[in-house]
Amino acid sequence: MPINIGILGLGTVGSGVVSILQQNAEDIQTRTQSEIQIKKILVRNPELPRNIQGKFQLTDQANDILQDPEVDIIVEVIGGIEPARSYILEALRQGKHVVTANKDLLALHGQELLDAANTAGKDLYFEASVAGGIPIIAALKHALAANRISALIGIINGTTNYILSAMAEQGRDYFEVLAEAQSLGYAEADPSADVDGLDAARKLSILASIAFNSRVTLKDVFVEGISKITRQDLAYAAELGCTIKLLAIAKHHEESIEVRVHPAILPMNHPLAAVNGVYNAIYVVGDAVGETMFYGRGAGSLPTGSAVVSDIIRVIRNIQANSTSMINCTCYRDLGIKASSEFFTAFYIRLLVKDEPRVLATLALLFAEANISFASIIQKPRGEQQAEIVLVTHPCREGALQEALDSVRAYSKVLMIHNVIRFEKGEESNS
Amino acid sequence: MPINIGILGLGTVGSGVVSILQQNAEDIQTRTQSEIQIKKILVRNPELPRNIQGKFQLTDQANDILQDPEVDIIVEVIGGIEPARSYILEALRQGKHVVTANKDLLALHGQELLDAANTAGKDLYFEASVAGGIPIIAALKHALAANRISALIGIINGTTNYILSAMAEQGRDYFEVLAEAQSLGYAEADPSADVDGLDAARKLSILASIAFNSRVTLKDVFVEGISKITRQDLAYAAELGCTIKLLAIAKHHEESIEVRVHPAILPMNHPLAAVNGVYNAIYVVGDAVGETMFYGRGAGSLPTGSAVVSDIIRVIRNIQANSTSMINCTCYRDLGIKASSEFFTAFYIRLLVKDEPRVLATLALLFAEANISFASIIQKPRGEQQAEIVLVTHPCREGALQEALDSVRAYSKVLMIHNVIRFEKGEESNS
Repeated sequence: MPINIGILGLGTVGSGVVSILQQNAEDIQTRTQSEIQIKKILVRNPELPRNIQGKFQLTDQANDILQDPEVDIIVEVIGGIEPARSYILEALRQGKHVVTANKDLLALHGQELLDAANTAGKDLYFEASVAGGIPIIAALKHALAANRISALIGIINGTTNYILSAMAEQGRDYFEVLAEAQSLGYAEADPSADVDGLDAARKLSILASIAFNSRVTLKDVFVEGISKITRQDLAYAAELGCTIKLLAIAKHHEESIEVRVHPAILPMNHPLAAVNGVYNAIYVVGDAVGETMFYGRGAGSLPTGSAVVSDIIRVIRNIQANSTSMINCTCYRDLGIKASSEFFTAFYIRLLVKDEPRVLATLALLFAEANISFASIIQKPRGEQQAEIVLVTHPCREGALQEALDSVRAYSKVLMIHNVIRFEKGEESNS
Repeated sequence: MPINIGILGLGTVGSGVVSILQQNAEDIQTRTQSEIQIKKILVRNPELPRNIQGKFQLTDQANDILQDPEVDIIVEVIGGIEPARSYILEALRQGKHVVTANKDLLALHGQELLDAANTAGKDLYFEASVAGGIPIIAALKHALAANRISALIGIINGTTNYILSAMAEQGRDYFEVLAEAQSLGYAEADPSADVDGLDAARKLSILASIAFNSRVTLKDVFVEGISKITRQDLAYAAELGCTIKLLAIAKHHEESIEVRVHPAILPMNHPLAAVNGVYNAIYVVGDAVGETMFYGRGAGSLPTGSAVVSDIIRVIRNIQANSTSMINCTCYRDLGIKASSEFFTAFYIRLLVKDEPRVLATLALLFAEANISFASIIQKPRGEQQAEIVLVTHPCREGALQEALDSVRAYSKVLMIHNVIRFEKGEESNS
């Protein structure tokens, strides 16, 4: 008996899934020892001419697929919250396994969906929801299962990584590169979900939940976007032997989880520093395995389709072994979320001051009052009796830094605080 | 009922396995919903004092463990061919699942062992046999199962990578760094298995078998070691924007497989170029996923233990779901092995010539006769009327290069061919 698949959505990812299932049909059949058939695909308009062919039927009626007793696996690649959520819940109620690429939905309603899958005794797989073709969810659930994960740092948004890479390589400005990225299709017309860090935050909430076995949702994640990063900051970062990346950071503390997405200065010898363009990577530190990194294309029709189809293969192997619904929700802990004022990181602070005696000494005192000291300082003349100063602090409490910045702002010799960027030094040295 | 584990061997990896199972016992128990107990450990001398503790029993009798009806999973971490092979076969006959870290054995007798596991209907897992804690075997068998893999390039020997990284970073000579690596314990007293490339070749035969679904054994792999690499070669590589790594390369052609281990010049912008020191990485190109890379520690007690224990967790999940023996042997093809004379790569050739007119022109002609042209040339004066020339060819048939080298050797103005090193340009550009 063939395994019948129903696909909801035939956009970028849906077309990739169809293409992989068709092109690699013979190998997939051998690997699963099953014949796989795409039976029905949900589209807005079944009458439109399309350049894909196959025995499947196009329909604009979701229930045609969800309630078809012959369909074994539903692939949800519509995206967004509704109707995707209702479709998945209905599919599970109808006794179907579900594979989805929907990060928005997982980040908001992951618990509800995984509970529904458990109740139904069906698989709900979602490898494609984070980092496209990179098998990071399988790694966390299976291949690193021996470990307690202490930290996970990801470059998991291709748009911002493309923009920051181009700014760094070409010495160009943010808005110029953003406009180019939009014209090339690497950024949306409304780029805010990407450049403001929300997309990365959604993915981070999914990854942190799995890595730390404790539910993290979107609202738990501290988020800051990249629009404040200038080419001047990138030039100073280079001078410091570093680059700037939008990092999604999750750390496991004794009794709490720290989750944050923000641009960060990163030493060039960190494995993540070489991840450029539209590539994604997730750096994971486990107590046994040490430092690992998983690298690949974070988006696109075929890379994301690779994750969806590999999940389909996993579900089919489960169906054959009668072992479905083994590993759905893995959140068996309930850890608190660390307040942002308690984050402990180093900072890069770029400011414009009057070039007068004792200004630097006074600045050092203002920071010292908040118990903050400097790891490095760069000072450069700027026009008439002004100087630009870049301060890199030793790691400090974020709350303390905010207090120090209040005093700095009140100091009359400080003309402007250009930028404050977190500085990520990495967990361990990378020999 | 607890799951009972018998461990054969208590060396570096065995101690790591015990330590992880003990330290992370609570999490592992929750993740598997099973109580796990180390019941017996095979050691040479059970009377020796040891600094590990637990309820387990030490024995020097393998059959005490292999034939204990209460033992569910045998962990083989003795290494070597015999008695490891006989122990694993006996364990499978006795109806036990097996987890092993033994690359030598898998590379030579993989087929026999996997067949025995299939016959017994038991799991035989071996993630730890390649690249320590990096979950590359699971990635190839599961997470990239949607793909046809076209190429796999690994840095999978930590000793040689440590030596080449130190030579490149510090401008030092091979034998000096090798001696240091030996004193630090990164290289064996007899380093030949590492520096001659045999260790990497064993691991490559395992990876290629899985990636291409066709059995590759050690004797199929073309092998060349790193002892011929000098600091001069590394300096020229740097001048070309490259570095030198011992690469394990497997490529899938229409009807054959190409498998080779040798030092190679690699552009600095290739993801593998930044993999330094004792780190390992495997770069995999799939038709759907595109370029991916898996990075981490390739050896050591805890990283390798991480892979062993993650395999144990997988076996336990299979036991509970009654779904063992699903994915043992995956070699459903039978592809031929490409002869080394048919390899198609670029080459770096460093030679000493008389510094006279027309020498370079003659060299170019000698290569042109074999249909080989140059991508770049560096020439430097060396002492009295001599010049050192580095030629980088465009990709060519290896057989053609050997013919050209014969003519070059016969040319009286060529005083010495210092070195010939393959040049790996990467599958796709890494934007």
